[in-house]
Amino acid sequence: MDAEIRFFEVGPRDGLQNESRVLSCEDRAAMIEGLVDAGVRDVEIGSFVHPRWVPQMAQTDEVARQIRRVEGVRYWALVPNLKGLERAAAADVQHVAVFMSATEAHNQSNLNRSLDESLAALKRTTEAAVAQGMVVRAYISTVFGCPFEGDVDFERVLEIGEELLANGAEHLSLGDTIGAGTPLQVAEGCAQAVERFGEDRVALHLHDTQGLAVANALLAYQAGVRLFDGAVGGMGGCPYAPGAAGNLASEDLVNLMLSMGARVDADLGGLCEVTDWLSQEVGLNTRSRYYPYWRSQQEQDT
Amino acid sequence: MDAEIRFFEVGPRDGLQNESRVLSCEDRAAMIEGLVDAGVRDVEIGSFVHPRWVPQMAQTDEVARQIRRVEGVRYWALVPNLKGLERAAAADVQHVAVFMSATEAHNQSNLNRSLDESLAALKRTTEAAVAQGMVVRAYISTVFGCPFEGDVDFERVLEIGEELLANGAEHLSLGDTIGAGTPLQVAEGCAQAVERFGEDRVALHLHDTQGLAVANALLAYQAGVRLFDGAVGGMGGCPYAPGAAGNLASEDLVNLMLSMGARVDADLGGLCEVTDWLSQEVGLNTRSRYYPYWRSQQEQDT
Repeated sequence: MDAEIRFFEVGPRDGLQNESRVLSCEDRAAMIEGLVDAGVRDVEIGSFVHPRWVPQMAQTDEVARQIRRVEGVRYWALVPNLKGLERAAAADVQHVAVFMSATEAHNQSNLNRSLDESLAALKRTTEAAVAQGMVVRAYISTVFGCPFEGDVDFERVLEIGEELLANGAEHLSLGDTIGAGTPLQVAEGCAQAVERFGEDRVALHLHDTQGLAVANALLAYQAGVRLFDGAVGGMGGCPYAPGAAGNLASEDLVNLMLSMGARVDADLGGLCEVTDWLSQEVGLNTRSRYYPYWRSQQEQDT
Repeated sequence: MDAEIRFFEVGPRDGLQNESRVLSCEDRAAMIEGLVDAGVRDVEIGSFVHPRWVPQMAQTDEVARQIRRVEGVRYWALVPNLKGLERAAAADVQHVAVFMSATEAHNQSNLNRSLDESLAALKRTTEAAVAQGMVVRAYISTVFGCPFEGDVDFERVLEIGEELLANGAEHLSLGDTIGAGTPLQVAEGCAQAVERFGEDRVALHLHDTQGLAVANALLAYQAGVRLFDGAVGGMGGCPYAPGAAGNLASEDLVNLMLSMGARVDADLGGLCEVTDWLSQEVGLNTRSRYYPYWRSQQEQDT
């Protein structure tokens, strides 16, 4: 196997939004620039959700202005609605992510809307974005398990995905928001999604709640997924999902893919340098498996 | 898939021997009894290596005497030589583990002997044990990578394994001592070992140095391995192998196997209770992925 993996870094958004500490705009910008220096080509820099709901993501406008933009890198931000889209456009963010759940109960809890209302709202936002020449990612959360409903009908996930892509989204990100997925289940769902939509249109977004994220990523890779989300340092979670732990760490994902013989656009050592900075300078608790090993190797070399 | 997995708990030996704190005999015995209460049917209770080398394993005789023995459970101890075998017999330990490396450099560093010298010594110990009606496990370490030699010739591992089994060992434990193995490599090696020796004679012993232990266990399972080592709480490592992190945590392994639809003799919740006791009462740093999730669930339920 010698596949090409695209890596999508969500740490500055999905990672930081669940940290109790709010980082300064300067630190958020430095984190993003560090990730881009590590070869990251898709990076989610923040969200335009109202700061009342997610104070960690306040001033994403300012972060967007501060970062030195690099040619060929796509800087993404989460937008909850048309108002968020306006703020993204005003901050010169041309890549936006819309989001909804696969289950009524989680969607109501997280977004205070029914699935049909979310589908209609995402259609408006996506069409408005595309009309302005923007590129849209569509997150579907709780695709492999819901904290309220339990098992999820994956056929419903595929139907929602179909509709979001038909609206004009470039690709989907299928989120195991509470880390409830098991390897064979994730592989089966991903195989169906890749077959239906194509490998360029399906990202997998894993959380490591029960310690299965690496196993799930492995079988998803073997099932044909070529685009993976990760959060550097394994930070993050979902504040609205009970029991949800951090995202699959970017460095653990990239190390896994390299171990399988895949090529990845992001650099493993460079990602570890960002985690090292977050851990040693910013003082966040990082949770990746690979980073402590990398650090012990650095210490031996010096 | 509905396979039957046998689980072999090495925490009271391979886990504790690399902790800086030395546990009391009472705590070691309580840990072993907790594991047996959790359904563990093979448990390594300690080693009869000289306490000058591994002070954490001093008084394994006393631990063996203190534990309440349960019918059907096999209590194992590591024995380095005939003297260790005598001590095991005197402590009524009828299941003993002998050990050597797959590489000259690691064997010299760890045991101060050549591979040929180790093979001869293990033959003497194994034959003496079998003559007394004991059962023997044979560890081969560094089978997927050596801290001194790098890549390991797996054909040599199989030859060593063949010889150890011919001496009378009941089964082998193939050790990724420094956690250098990658999923396809581990799967390929395990498939060869299982084909050559049979699934009852091959255990896989993983360390999570680089965060790949769960991925390696998954593909090894798919390659036919049915006997896995783990250390409760993910403790342990190898004091003679630079950069080696803890063992694959028993609870992470068992959770993975259950997620694949396998049946496992050990109980996931029961293992987490042992980790909880080690973490909260004994005060050790545990490193499993599943245990924090289990604990958050317990807290929600109370």
